[in-house]
Amino acid sequence: MSKSETDAPPMVGGDGTCSYYKNSYLQRRSANVVKEKIDEEIAKKLDFHNLPIASNTFRLADLGCSVGPNTFFHVQDLLEAIKQKYEMQFHTSQIPEFQVFFNDQPMNDFNALFNNLPQERQYFAAGVPGSFYDRLFPESFLHFVHCSISLHWLSKLPEQLLDKNSPAWNRGRIHYTNAPNEVVNAYASQFAKDMENFLNARSKELVSGGMIVIISQGIPNGMLYSELQNGVMFECMSLSLMDMVKEGVVSEAQVDSFNLPFYAASPDEMTEIVERNGFFNIERMELNDPAAWLKRRINIPEWVLHLRAAMEESFRKHFGGEVLDKFFDRLTKKLSKFSDELELKYREKTLLLVVLKRQ
Amino acid sequence: MSKSETDAPPMVGGDGTCSYYKNSYLQRRSANVVKEKIDEEIAKKLDFHNLPIASNTFRLADLGCSVGPNTFFHVQDLLEAIKQKYEMQFHTSQIPEFQVFFNDQPMNDFNALFNNLPQERQYFAAGVPGSFYDRLFPESFLHFVHCSISLHWLSKLPEQLLDKNSPAWNRGRIHYTNAPNEVVNAYASQFAKDMENFLNARSKELVSGGMIVIISQGIPNGMLYSELQNGVMFECMSLSLMDMVKEGVVSEAQVDSFNLPFYAASPDEMTEIVERNGFFNIERMELNDPAAWLKRRINIPEWVLHLRAAMEESFRKHFGGEVLDKFFDRLTKKLSKFSDELELKYREKTLLLVVLKRQ
Repeated sequence: MSKSETDAPPMVGGDGTCSYYKNSYLQRRSANVVKEKIDEEIAKKLDFHNLPIASNTFRLADLGCSVGPNTFFHVQDLLEAIKQKYEMQFHTSQIPEFQVFFNDQPMNDFNALFNNLPQERQYFAAGVPGSFYDRLFPESFLHFVHCSISLHWLSKLPEQLLDKNSPAWNRGRIHYTNAPNEVVNAYASQFAKDMENFLNARSKELVSGGMIVIISQGIPNGMLYSELQNGVMFECMSLSLMDMVKEGVVSEAQVDSFNLPFYAASPDEMTEIVERNGFFNIERMELNDPAAWLKRRINIPEWVLHLRAAMEESFRKHFGGEVLDKFFDRLTKKLSKFSDELELKYREKTLLLVVLKRQ
Repeated sequence: MSKSETDAPPMVGGDGTCSYYKNSYLQRRSANVVKEKIDEEIAKKLDFHNLPIASNTFRLADLGCSVGPNTFFHVQDLLEAIKQKYEMQFHTSQIPEFQVFFNDQPMNDFNALFNNLPQERQYFAAGVPGSFYDRLFPESFLHFVHCSISLHWLSKLPEQLLDKNSPAWNRGRIHYTNAPNEVVNAYASQFAKDMENFLNARSKELVSGGMIVIISQGIPNGMLYSELQNGVMFECMSLSLMDMVKEGVVSEAQVDSFNLPFYAASPDEMTEIVERNGFFNIERMELNDPAAWLKRRINIPEWVLHLRAAMEESFRKHFGGEVLDKFFDRLTKKLSKFSDELELKYREKTLLLVVLKRQ
């Protein structure tokens, strides 16, 4: 049980203007797209008659929770649905006590998280620092796991991406969008390894009958990442950095050695990994539109603000803090230039909802 | 379960030169004075045959843990003793999994705590923000509670101390040292209320047969606080502030309205509170010398550095940050002036060890 860190960035801490706390409502709206579906699965599949609940306590973990407020809204929604199911099954309003574990990497801003905790919460709260690709809890401890908009961050970059002699050397790009197959495959096999570790850890921590809900970036079977709106965004990030190389602000070697550990899986891939693991039944697996509410064109400055709150630590670590403003300004301009292309790109079914149940 | 805060200050966060992390080794040495006694109590009184351990997990909480490193040393020591007892009772080295909950107030620096967590720990770690005078955990959840050098901080100041018309108005002083009986009694009854809340919360959270170890500032039965070394320290704090009133640095009203929520109980008091509560058996209650290792005179600058790391937030909140250096410099000089008196004052039996067992 060593202190585990991953290559994935922590979100911007605190609750200032540029914080993830203030700039994560788009992520929340995306996750809300699937709220009713999750409620439905809880009502149908969470079976208290077959769930071991020691000391009348129901334990839920939100893995990759960041600093709030999204985690608090999600937890509240989940607890409502879980309570309703309990009352329905036992015809009583004498519900169990709830204990909620907020997990994220040790470098997450837990001070902000704890200071943002809802004052009138109806649960006991705890924070758990560590990577969700490792064990975080004792055996048979949890009843419900929620993991929203975070499992697409890999635990680490595939090493061959940085090897100049490998066909997977990812020169001039910072992601597998528009990259050779070797790069895409390196990302895919790292995701498969990570997901396997995630499922193995959870298979120990969850009681039999316990459930996992994953909301994550996804992609339709057989589609290329470059066909997605997010693909244009990653491409614009690469192009913005290469422009900055030309200006001498960053070096080419810096760009070549930088890759975002971000991977979107397809339902087929995910199904194969879960079935190979063998500890969980797939209760639901489907792709959703992450911006179902969006009727007009994308608001690019708003989008970049959210990207920045979620990703700037990665860029800061590699390129230094002084180029951040320049980079994100340039990205906004670049994306605006590609605005028409962006609108034509695929977006609809890129939010993957996976509901699993421990056998 | 509202977000609870107390009047007690958080320790200085981070791990810089003036941090509690760097300036808490005196507290650690004090706590170590009783280490062997605690090991002895665990070996004698912790009975695994009568302890309900669900899913083979043993759960321990350190209440008022601050930012480390003391909490990590204490937890390690306790786990060693608990493992030994387990192996002795079951003649096996197949020990349970351990889960450790680090608790402190929400304004504690949990980021520092989590970043200081031992890398090679043999337990699952979680942080729990909240006052230990309230409920922090579900029912029958914990097997062992440790509360070191923190229960002498009251949850709040007795209100009558600030009422000019009350005989307990504590004019010109910041503590009950050398104060009228009304002031002493106000502190004592706040302590009794707090301790009652502490015991009530723990009585719910601990399994039957679970244990509590408290290490706290104490005082022999019938002794006055002014007879203790710490009494001289509180007196010098008051005098330093009154000097600063004369210089116009702080106002008299500021000093009159400031009181440190710090109370040292006697074994008789503690016994009465525990017996009145009725949920716990007293396994051990004794006073120890908190500086048993100290052969020479007190090193006053070192002492003040430790006081400052533990107390400066209280002073900052009330008097503002700009007077802190001046105040602690003055305190060092004042204490040096009273150095001979300090050496003559009582110190020996002022560390209270209490070991309780849930019925």
